[in-house]
Amino acid sequence: MSRLKEELHQIIFEADTPAGKWFDTILIGTILASVLVVMLDSVQPFTSQYGPLLDQLEWAFTILFTIEYVFRLYCVRKPLRYAASFFGVVDLLAILPTYLSLFIPGTKYLTVIRVLRVLRVFRVFKLVTYLQEAHQLRAALHASRRKITVFLFSVAVLVVVLGSLMYVVEGERNGFSSIPLSIYWAVVTLTTVGYGDIAPNTPLGQALAAIVMVLGYGIIAVPTGIVTAELTRLPPVDETTQACPSCACEIHARDALFCRRCGARL
Amino acid sequence: MSRLKEELHQIIFEADTPAGKWFDTILIGTILASVLVVMLDSVQPFTSQYGPLLDQLEWAFTILFTIEYVFRLYCVRKPLRYAASFFGVVDLLAILPTYLSLFIPGTKYLTVIRVLRVLRVFRVFKLVTYLQEAHQLRAALHASRRKITVFLFSVAVLVVVLGSLMYVVEGERNGFSSIPLSIYWAVVTLTTVGYGDIAPNTPLGQALAAIVMVLGYGIIAVPTGIVTAELTRLPPVDETTQACPSCACEIHARDALFCRRCGARL
Amino acid sequence: MSRLKEELHQIIFEADTPAGKWFDTILIGTILASVLVVMLDSVQPFTSQYGPLLDQLEWAFTILFTIEYVFRLYCVRKPLRYAASFFGVVDLLAILPTYLSLFIPGTKYLTVIRVLRVLRVFRVFKLVTYLQEAHQLRAALHASRRKITVFLFSVAVLVVVLGSLMYVVEGERNGFSSIPLSIYWAVVTLTTVGYGDIAPNTPLGQALAAIVMVLGYGIIAVPTGIVTAELTRLPPVDETTQACPSCACEIHARDALFCRRCGARL
Amino acid sequence: MSRLKEELHQIIFEADTPAGKWFDTILIGTILASVLVVMLDSVQPFTSQYGPLLDQLEWAFTILFTIEYVFRLYCVRKPLRYAASFFGVVDLLAILPTYLSLFIPGTKYLTVIRVLRVLRVFRVFKLVTYLQEAHQLRAALHASRRKITVFLFSVAVLVVVLGSLMYVVEGERNGFSSIPLSIYWAVVTLTTVGYGDIAPNTPLGQALAAIVMVLGYGIIAVPTGIVTAELTRLPPVDETTQACPSCACEIHARDALFCRRCGARL
Repeated sequence: MSRLKEELHQIIFEADTPAGKWFDTILIGTILASVLVVMLDSVQPFTSQYGPLLDQLEWAFTILFTIEYVFRLYCVRKPLRYAASFFGVVDLLAILPTYLSLFIPGTKYLTVIRVLRVLRVFRVFKLVTYLQEAHQLRAALHASRRKITVFLFSVAVLVVVLGSLMYVVEGERNGFSSIPLSIYWAVVTLTTVGYGDIAPNTPLGQALAAIVMVLGYGIIAVPTGIVTAELTRLPPVDETTQACPSCACEIHARDALFCRRCGARL
Repeated sequence: MSRLKEELHQIIFEADTPAGKWFDTILIGTILASVLVVMLDSVQPFTSQYGPLLDQLEWAFTILFTIEYVFRLYCVRKPLRYAASFFGVVDLLAILPTYLSLFIPGTKYLTVIRVLRVLRVFRVFKLVTYLQEAHQLRAALHASRRKITVFLFSVAVLVVVLGSLMYVVEGERNGFSSIPLSIYWAVVTLTTVGYGDIAPNTPLGQALAAIVMVLGYGIIAVPTGIVTAELTRLPPVDETTQACPSCACEIHARDALFCRRCGARL
Repeated sequence: MSRLKEELHQIIFEADTPAGKWFDTILIGTILASVLVVMLDSVQPFTSQYGPLLDQLEWAFTILFTIEYVFRLYCVRKPLRYAASFFGVVDLLAILPTYLSLFIPGTKYLTVIRVLRVLRVFRVFKLVTYLQEAHQLRAALHASRRKITVFLFSVAVLVVVLGSLMYVVEGERNGFSSIPLSIYWAVVTLTTVGYGDIAPNTPLGQALAAIVMVLGYGIIAVPTGIVTAELTRLPPVDETTQACPSCACEIHARDALFCRRCGARL
Repeated sequence: MSRLKEELHQIIFEADTPAGKWFDTILIGTILASVLVVMLDSVQPFTSQYGPLLDQLEWAFTILFTIEYVFRLYCVRKPLRYAASFFGVVDLLAILPTYLSLFIPGTKYLTVIRVLRVLRVFRVFKLVTYLQEAHQLRAALHASRRKITVFLFSVAVLVVVLGSLMYVVEGERNGFSSIPLSIYWAVVTLTTVGYGDIAPNTPLGQALAAIVMVLGYGIIAVPTGIVTAELTRLPPVDETTQACPSCACEIHARDALFCRRCGARL
């Protein structure tokens, strides 16, 4: 029993053995195919012609992924820990929408979230260097999370103030029909997206908008500066992509003997 | 008397005692609730249904904040200094618009400026590290203020020249109906916002616009470079969030014994 | 004679003497006033009402600046060198358009180029530190001019290729009516301006446009990286490390008025 | 025979001799002229008037470039290596579309790809410093290619998820008529291009869009940070622009005696 579990773990979670590699490669192919099916299902000409076929395919994929999910839970030593991990949650979210669509129509399109499962691609194809650099990026973002939180918080407050000011200046005649909508306009402008669906018409509003734009143009320097400063600071890391046999947590230092999450021997 | 003042100061300005913490938590909740009320008041379906209720709520909030403002002035040792500080001005601006709306309709929406008071949140919930990083960000922006002023001044001059050039090239037929409006277009384009409400139609105008875009695309490097260089340079700071008892100025070095603004013992 | 020249030079070119300071201050005021006149002249309601007055004012300003230009040429030791310098050319361009407008109508609006003369403001008001930082910025841009030239050259080539590709893919039916216009679209998209006056309609065109956007989103990193690297390399500007007169404790915040250790006035 | 080959190589591939310089200068002029012809050919007024003339010119240029391409293949020692190099492929692509247009109309406009040949300009005019800085830029981009791949991969996954979410939220009533189109919208928004051809109309959709914008505004920091960190790290390089006589590979270290690609003596 335990032998079977271990072998299944080797195949499903690791990509070191030929069987494990085959499993992961086929899995990624299946995921991409299923995402493509969902996408085509939303395009008018395809739905009207192949609607039932696409629906059947979608159900087939979902049942396949459900079986896989059950097997993953079965062969991991600490199933709850896996279920609560990032990929565990994604694996669940990848199958739920299809079942939900039986009760709430339209939700089936949310199954595209299973595209997140493809992020495993770096591990499967032994793209260790890529995984290391990805980890480095994540480390830089993690180190700057507090500064970025402060920045986003300030931007949120700024956007509320600017949006309300604009609502008073431009008013409902010019498309700024409510404060929430004006705040939406402020976000569109401050981030330099600029749809143009709502745009100021009065001279005063345009002057204010110009200030918002220059502000947005300037404060983009802040997140960039934060991340750059962190990236310049970080030393190169050295890691492997071996998954922990008991909690499926990935990425350990090359000389690690125990999992950094659950303490199990690697 | 002086005892009462000191205790009030503890509760209103500090967040070290349980009472002070409670006061600040309730205050932030009240501020957010009042901002929500003003926002809803601007949304058509809500106004027509709950208009009078929302107005009454708004007045209740304003009177509450007015009382709080008076108490703040009362228990601070140097009231004028507090009234002239950033949060002192914000606290006043947070109540003024409602009173003003008795004379000038529409200004009541400006009360959302009280959302700025929420910036105290970092101090209240003892998010010291966040406050430190916020201070670090501010220090970096402060250190680069002169370079940014020079940059903004150059951009302002550039925008005037480019806008006028475009007015001559495109003219009133193509929507560039005056120089101020053309300058507005130049800001919209240079900052890469690009609403599209005004866009060049003649080949010469489009060529000129393309140059403006590439220019804007390039000079965004300047503020980013300035802030990044400062952020890379800054050493980590070590500070506390204790407010000065006599002038309410916040953020002092951890080893500070005296307020850096008014010299009072902390 | 030579004395007169020297004194005139002191007044017109320098800002060290009271007379020179007055001259420069009045000059900047006059320039801003004349720019305002030109701007108002382009706004419909103003022209129809005050058109002749604005025209007269414009001519008065131009004659004033012409006299000033002649005096500048007269009192400088090497008039040709001044005439060929940046500010010499700007001073000439600031008066030419009004005279030109006698022959070519509409060119008078180009006189706003005289706003460039305002850049002298930093020198006039002894904003030495600002001037230093402006010089530092210019040095960084100068050091990176070759990398930026290579970058702009590559972007120009890229934009021609992408625009032509889009012309073939979308064609004249979808607004991409010629290669030059498609190149204009490519610039609008690559620089993330995105007016939306021309936008792809076919699925293939939209896929190609998405690639152009991601490309533009990515290569903005290049000029930013270039300028930032140069700015990081430059030596830091002098900081205020004033020692406390009573306890000799160093490093105070720039806005500190009292020593943070002993409370003495700095 | 071998003498002739060597002399032709000197003229066609090198720019050290007067003949070689003349050849390259004329070549770049011819390329620019031919690109201009193709562009004009796409502009309506020109085509209807000078259509046949422009077509003849286009054919003349193509035959000229074909002859040149044959000579390049002839005088290089390892023709296959040259044909597979970047400039070899570009040289071929610069002539193919005209021939292809005999079978598939419209493809002739793709000949503008020959503008890529102009990139040789830096070598021709001995702009060694420019070439070095270009190489440095390329080195920085090369060093950060893995981080950028990870970034682009994550952005691609994100865009699929966000686009699908928006499709479910906004639906076909509001212009989000299929998942692929919604993904296109997500790219337009995340990269802050913001055409405005598709924009959210429901409050929930606008809130989601605001989050996407702030996300896009923030993650632009990532590629910028990556490239900046690399550029700050790189030491100045020292190289020459001599082309290898046997494989035409350019840019070697100044003290190199052998080609870094094929090992031939320089």
